[in-house]
Amino acid sequence: MYKVDLNSDLGESFGRFVVGLDEKVIPYISSANVACGYHASDPVVMEKTVKTAKEQNVRVGAHPGFPDLMGFGRRNMDITPAEAKAYTLYQISALSGFCKAQGVKMQHVKPHGAFYNTAARDYELSKAICEAIYAFDPNLIVMGLSGGELVRAAKDMGLRTALEVFADRAYEEDGSLVNRRKEGAMITDETQAIARVVRMVKEGKVTAITGKDIEIKADSICVHGDGEKAVAFVEKIREALQKEGVQICSLDEIV
Amino acid sequence: MYKVDLNSDLGESFGRFVVGLDEKVIPYISSANVACGYHASDPVVMEKTVKTAKEQNVRVGAHPGFPDLMGFGRRNMDITPAEAKAYTLYQISALSGFCKAQGVKMQHVKPHGAFYNTAARDYELSKAICEAIYAFDPNLIVMGLSGGELVRAAKDMGLRTALEVFADRAYEEDGSLVNRRKEGAMITDETQAIARVVRMVKEGKVTAITGKDIEIKADSICVHGDGEKAVAFVEKIREALQKEGVQICSLDEIV
Amino acid sequence: MYKVDLNSDLGESFGRFVVGLDEKVIPYISSANVACGYHASDPVVMEKTVKTAKEQNVRVGAHPGFPDLMGFGRRNMDITPAEAKAYTLYQISALSGFCKAQGVKMQHVKPHGAFYNTAARDYELSKAICEAIYAFDPNLIVMGLSGGELVRAAKDMGLRTALEVFADRAYEEDGSLVNRRKEGAMITDETQAIARVVRMVKEGKVTAITGKDIEIKADSICVHGDGEKAVAFVEKIREALQKEGVQICSLDEIV
Amino acid sequence: MYKVDLNSDLGESFGRFVVGLDEKVIPYISSANVACGYHASDPVVMEKTVKTAKEQNVRVGAHPGFPDLMGFGRRNMDITPAEAKAYTLYQISALSGFCKAQGVKMQHVKPHGAFYNTAARDYELSKAICEAIYAFDPNLIVMGLSGGELVRAAKDMGLRTALEVFADRAYEEDGSLVNRRKEGAMITDETQAIARVVRMVKEGKVTAITGKDIEIKADSICVHGDGEKAVAFVEKIREALQKEGVQICSLDEIV
Repeated sequence: MYKVDLNSDLGESFGRFVVGLDEKVIPYISSANVACGYHASDPVVMEKTVKTAKEQNVRVGAHPGFPDLMGFGRRNMDITPAEAKAYTLYQISALSGFCKAQGVKMQHVKPHGAFYNTAARDYELSKAICEAIYAFDPNLIVMGLSGGELVRAAKDMGLRTALEVFADRAYEEDGSLVNRRKEGAMITDETQAIARVVRMVKEGKVTAITGKDIEIKADSICVHGDGEKAVAFVEKIREALQKEGVQICSLDEIV
Repeated sequence: MYKVDLNSDLGESFGRFVVGLDEKVIPYISSANVACGYHASDPVVMEKTVKTAKEQNVRVGAHPGFPDLMGFGRRNMDITPAEAKAYTLYQISALSGFCKAQGVKMQHVKPHGAFYNTAARDYELSKAICEAIYAFDPNLIVMGLSGGELVRAAKDMGLRTALEVFADRAYEEDGSLVNRRKEGAMITDETQAIARVVRMVKEGKVTAITGKDIEIKADSICVHGDGEKAVAFVEKIREALQKEGVQICSLDEIV
Repeated sequence: MYKVDLNSDLGESFGRFVVGLDEKVIPYISSANVACGYHASDPVVMEKTVKTAKEQNVRVGAHPGFPDLMGFGRRNMDITPAEAKAYTLYQISALSGFCKAQGVKMQHVKPHGAFYNTAARDYELSKAICEAIYAFDPNLIVMGLSGGELVRAAKDMGLRTALEVFADRAYEEDGSLVNRRKEGAMITDETQAIARVVRMVKEGKVTAITGKDIEIKADSICVHGDGEKAVAFVEKIREALQKEGVQICSLDEIV
Repeated sequence: MYKVDLNSDLGESFGRFVVGLDEKVIPYISSANVACGYHASDPVVMEKTVKTAKEQNVRVGAHPGFPDLMGFGRRNMDITPAEAKAYTLYQISALSGFCKAQGVKMQHVKPHGAFYNTAARDYELSKAICEAIYAFDPNLIVMGLSGGELVRAAKDMGLRTALEVFADRAYEEDGSLVNRRKEGAMITDETQAIARVVRMVKEGKVTAITGKDIEIKADSICVHGDGEKAVAFVEKIREALQKEGVQICSLDEIV
């Protein structure tokens, strides 16, 4: 039977700055990536987000990012591997306290934004991130771009990995995401996006922007809860997958 | 036999902003309070500080503070108990990751600066701090002002406590520290300061600023490593205590 | 003829954290208090907010706050007068650059949140704030709680002042705002709130929470743009004032 | 007669984090680049630094950097030109307030660290920085790497420029600085460093790392005050230049 995880970034509010429809998207997902206070979130938000995830039976992962609140962690920062390792360890540990206090087992780690994108291309940075994860808990699952350097580094270190795919993004022939500045980078047609996702999960294939079919493995699909329309789309993806016989379940049951 | 712990704040550098003679003071102390990134320190500094403490056989504690890097956590912030709880849990958890990665057991938690001072007077705030500590690890020792509200709240919750005294500060009759703005608040004569410390440890007494002797229990003495003179004074205190038959040892052996 | 200014806090978004319906509330107000990057806002937001205010013919003021983004400047911080002066000068200067670049004359300064509330009670802090304003530009108008210490300090220094009143808050007999934690602190009935505002502007009187009428001078009314309901209320206040023969105009035409 | 400016970064302390021997280096320099609170400094430090510069008759410039206090602005951040423009305007405006309050005329703007290095290579980023400077005050002098993109963009915009050279860095044949990771990147021999500086100022030439002489124009020499040794070296450079008939003077007298 086909299985896949649906993951979404949660707990991205910061103090009085409330963003994201966490309560609305959480019923549709199986894994929550919780921001850890560097690119978004704060301790009060983290505590509440872990509580909500627990109540809704959604698994919790850490979502470490660059120390760039002003840029929401979406701007690349030229940090060293030693810094990447320490920043990752700091953030996953900080979140782990809220999990521990509420009796929740942390499931995975997924870097955020530019940290995620740079890691997908940079093995050395990925290795540093994975060293932090391994040192903290070798049972944690590392979630990264399917085919990218982060999951490669994680595998090399003996860590479990979750290969992530995107419903709303076009792919290059080498499996990398098409740069957002290029035309056609975003899959805006919902029907097409859903069909692509179903195919990635069931066939392990996707049509690259060049028109050529490429192989891609999908353990988890990235979805968004940053607006009413986004949440409605998550519901549609979920329904389509279930209709196609794909079970939505946590990463622990998949990898 | 008399026993006492010598504690000092360590790991207070931040990025390129290097402060404190950590390497020089650490041979004389038994417990290090490691800043956790809110009022001082960063992940790279925390990793290094835990490593140094481990190498020097000094016990590690978390030193959570207000989120006020610009004020070094020395300015009171009117936060709610819920915020205090979440901020404490975030910071001690973050440090715990560096301990875990290096096989170091975290020994204690001592709030920093204005967080410490306000907690010493405010039971509700102290209760919130202790709830975070208890939720994270009920075996942690809570270090606070001898006779203050933090250690009272900790005891009420069943947590172990370490009563801290100051060599360089005058006391009011009620056991509180004399406000720094009042004349005579600081004990500047080193010989007198050392004699007071020895008496607090051995007799459980100190002469208040009014001239009256008051009772005071000393599990740990606060010392400083922020300058050559401070470090030299720590060495003197240590020697004087040992000469007086007082053993310097970790909190786990005392409380 | 009666005249009054309607002011609202604008430009409080921070990076990707978007808050406030700036575009919707701005047509109804005459003065915008623009956050300066300490409790909210960032340079990109400041630039855009000054541009919007200019286009809508709304006067611009600086809205300096405590350096507490996580708490949105709503938690008191025990800073010194010297710090208050420097923080104020930094923030109003920073905003002035965006005004200068767009050919906008800065009209006023209104401290934010806890900085505002503490200043209203603390003459020394208010004096420090006013020293910064005076040093930067003695023609700036200082906006503060009607009857509070900030406007008193400003007058003592020869600065022009704008006395601010609140439509949605109850007053104590001494003219201070009723603490939000006390019952009856908020005026939730819109009709009543509007009637109170009209009376404050036209008669210079308001009924305190004790039932006694007190004198109060109103140069400006604080309104909010943080939600659809709030914006609708601003529209109602504006209409009611105009129907009562009160002209909404900028502070420069009033004080 | 030969003329050159000696510039140094000042006011880089942050709250209790004191760095740099500002008081010691200032007597030897003619221009101070004052940090503006993004990569270093805070309002209290900025106020004090402008005061010290004024007393010592040293000209003041703004030293804007990336919003990366933890990395001291030394890590490249992938910001957009619009962000670069707004961040620059914010920072130079903030510093200008302290100048205005003390009757000091701001002389120049020199980006800091990674912002400086990236601008030297990136015309678009440089253009954005210069737009902010021009909008704020078209009389400001833009200081940048001699031969780099920042000064080129400034010239194209009609701004005055100060071409900066380094005593302690090797040059590539194209006039760019040799990457610090390459062997020979740093000129560690003081006598050689001084001879190179004198030659750059008097002959407009320097020997590149390849051994080939290249042309280089020197309006200002970058010196450091971050340690006793660095300050002693500044004194030596100053003496050597004066002995060689080179006058140390402010940029206003040179460009």
